Amino acid sequence: MPSLSPSDVQSRLISVPDWVVESGELVRTFLFKDFRASMSFVNKLADLSEQAGHHPDIDIRYNKVRLALVTHDAGGLTTKDFDLAAGADKLV
Amino acid sequence: MPSLSPSDVQSRLISVPDWVVESGELVRTFLFKDFRASMSFVNKLADLSEQAGHHPDIDIRYNKVRLALVTHDAGGLTTKDFDLAAGADKLV
Repeated sequence: MPSLSPSDVQSRLISVPDWVVESGELVRTFLFKDFRASMSFVNKLADLSEQAGHHPDIDIRYNKVRLALVTHDAGGLTTKDFDLAAGADKLV
Repeated sequence: MPSLSPSDVQSRLISVPDWVVESGELVRTFLFKDFRASMSFVNKLADLSEQAGHHPDIDIRYNKVRLALVTHDAGGLTTKDFDLAAGADKLV
């Protein structure tokens, strides 16, 4: 799977407006009411990731969960990253 | 709860030899066979954290889970951090 061109990345970002590109990764920090709510989200995300065969970096900070997506094999962002970002958005 | 003195930290580190102090935090990276195994550990750790009322920073990188502990209220490491570190060690 080839990585997306910068202009393709820009157009696709429109469909996931809560995400930003940071150091070549697609990133969003989700805010929850407490740690349990963070864990509930992370578990739903884990199932989605296993189904997709694609795993974000997940940083849990009590009621905040930061996800960072990139397709290492492609050396950049691909449609897999944007698909998983859109899927994560639907979990909240 | 007061933070531990540097010499107390050094003595307590002997009881959790897989942990190191990095930037004032008690840190260990756990290695698992895959993402599912990482998630299984994180869920057990989450229960332990809720029981202890103390929550580490948790970074999931597919089959690696990095925990970082510090007692923010005390401005440093306390027995709560070492207790939770020892508890996390028992989960693997």
